[in-house]
Amino acid sequence: MSALEPVGPGFRLADVDPDATPGIDRAHAERELTDSADELSDLQERLYADAKVGGTRSVLLVLQGIDTAGKGGIIRHVVGLVDPQGVRITAFKAPTPQERAHDFLWRIRRALPEPGLIGVFDRSHYEDVLIHRVRGLSPLEVVEQRYGIIRDFEAGLVAGGTLVRKVMLQISRDEQRKRLQDRLDRPDKHWKFNPGDIDERLLWDDYQAAYQIALERTSTPDAPWYVVPADAKWYARWAVHRILLDALREIDLQWPPADFDVEHEKARLAAS
Amino acid sequence: MSALEPVGPGFRLADVDPDATPGIDRAHAERELTDSADELSDLQERLYADAKVGGTRSVLLVLQGIDTAGKGGIIRHVVGLVDPQGVRITAFKAPTPQERAHDFLWRIRRALPEPGLIGVFDRSHYEDVLIHRVRGLSPLEVVEQRYGIIRDFEAGLVAGGTLVRKVMLQISRDEQRKRLQDRLDRPDKHWKFNPGDIDERLLWDDYQAAYQIALERTSTPDAPWYVVPADAKWYARWAVHRILLDALREIDLQWPPADFDVEHEKARLAAS
Repeated sequence: MSALEPVGPGFRLADVDPDATPGIDRAHAERELTDSADELSDLQERLYADAKVGGTRSVLLVLQGIDTAGKGGIIRHVVGLVDPQGVRITAFKAPTPQERAHDFLWRIRRALPEPGLIGVFDRSHYEDVLIHRVRGLSPLEVVEQRYGIIRDFEAGLVAGGTLVRKVMLQISRDEQRKRLQDRLDRPDKHWKFNPGDIDERLLWDDYQAAYQIALERTSTPDAPWYVVPADAKWYARWAVHRILLDALREIDLQWPPADFDVEHEKARLAAS
Repeated sequence: MSALEPVGPGFRLADVDPDATPGIDRAHAERELTDSADELSDLQERLYADAKVGGTRSVLLVLQGIDTAGKGGIIRHVVGLVDPQGVRITAFKAPTPQERAHDFLWRIRRALPEPGLIGVFDRSHYEDVLIHRVRGLSPLEVVEQRYGIIRDFEAGLVAGGTLVRKVMLQISRDEQRKRLQDRLDRPDKHWKFNPGDIDERLLWDDYQAAYQIALERTSTPDAPWYVVPADAKWYARWAVHRILLDALREIDLQWPPADFDVEHEKARLAAS
């Protein structure tokens, strides 16, 4: 299965090889990123421009994955290719007391991209059906209700003009060990390490099962999930870049027409 | 005077040649940007890491300049070099009714960078002593009070751990005409044009005078202004990049030490 094919009926997470790089080799992947830089930039600017004249379109990219899966690297190296004025990034941590006092989508709604922007979620409302399921942070019947609530919520976003794409970065258990080891070996990476990461690692199979359920219940034609093999960082970057580029291509906006009299303004400028 | 020297006593804006490129040629400027990419990235990450363990340092970069001076280009091409997770950009437009119901610094305070972040203001509280002075949007005695209020406000930011750098991009009247003409000639740039830009252009000398007053009254050793000649875009980008890089060098943070027992965690990882 290609990483650029959304999760559909019969999808099995266990069938995804985290070390695979389907469809492209490293040299071509890196060239594609360079070659499409102008197109990405142009499409993002059209999205931004459209909202200036009243357009309602936006993009929401949800990034999920276990600790060290590479969400931060994707934001730095893929989202970082886009004009930062057109991007809104939100990292969702353990909820604050204020956030916990509201329904689980409250903090999500407040972070949605305004028209014209590309919103990026580093973790998201999916934590409420992942860690909540694995660690029993909410009763199972509450978790069970959330899949439908999430589908409806995302359908509402799409109806409002937001193009929704969801990416799970899938690494292997062995690759995670290497990455955690690196954070422990290098003093300049100690700040990225959290002893809780190992606690979560011990629940590996439970998280995989929780992801399987979330993916199959919430991947819809309008708000699809993509599972991206992420042991090879260059591959994950290429794949997410393509998913973002294809999303902007799909929106296919034109430059907005002038809302002023161009010739009149040229004459005023000449006289100024 | 070098663009990398802050505004000090006796500074005269009229003496700045907007077309000058003091201190460097284009080839060296572009090489410097490439060569220092890793250092910029490293310093930004140290700032970010420091806040994760309780540090209070942040950076605030204020960008000002007349329409078409290139603020957006600086954000795209200079701020865009930094990991977007470490940056918070705010563009200040004409204030909303809600913002107008508060004192002029209210919306500014809400947009300040949290510890660990580089905050970038595209326009700022300085509009309240620039357009407000030129167009009489506030009584002159109110505008006159604001310079001192701003100095005190910024001194407070510095005392709280924020390194403040303020940049005015200075273009010539003729260069502005060319850039506005380009926005009128190219349909893909019409959305960037606003007839109000020409109204403001007609007040050129008044804006220069208002900038002169703001610069001389609010450039302090701890929150200095830099006037960057910006007719040559490559030069303005190099200069702002250097100002940002020097600011991060000045903060000079080290990687935070581990707040956990490294050997113990290595053993846990090995057993996991």
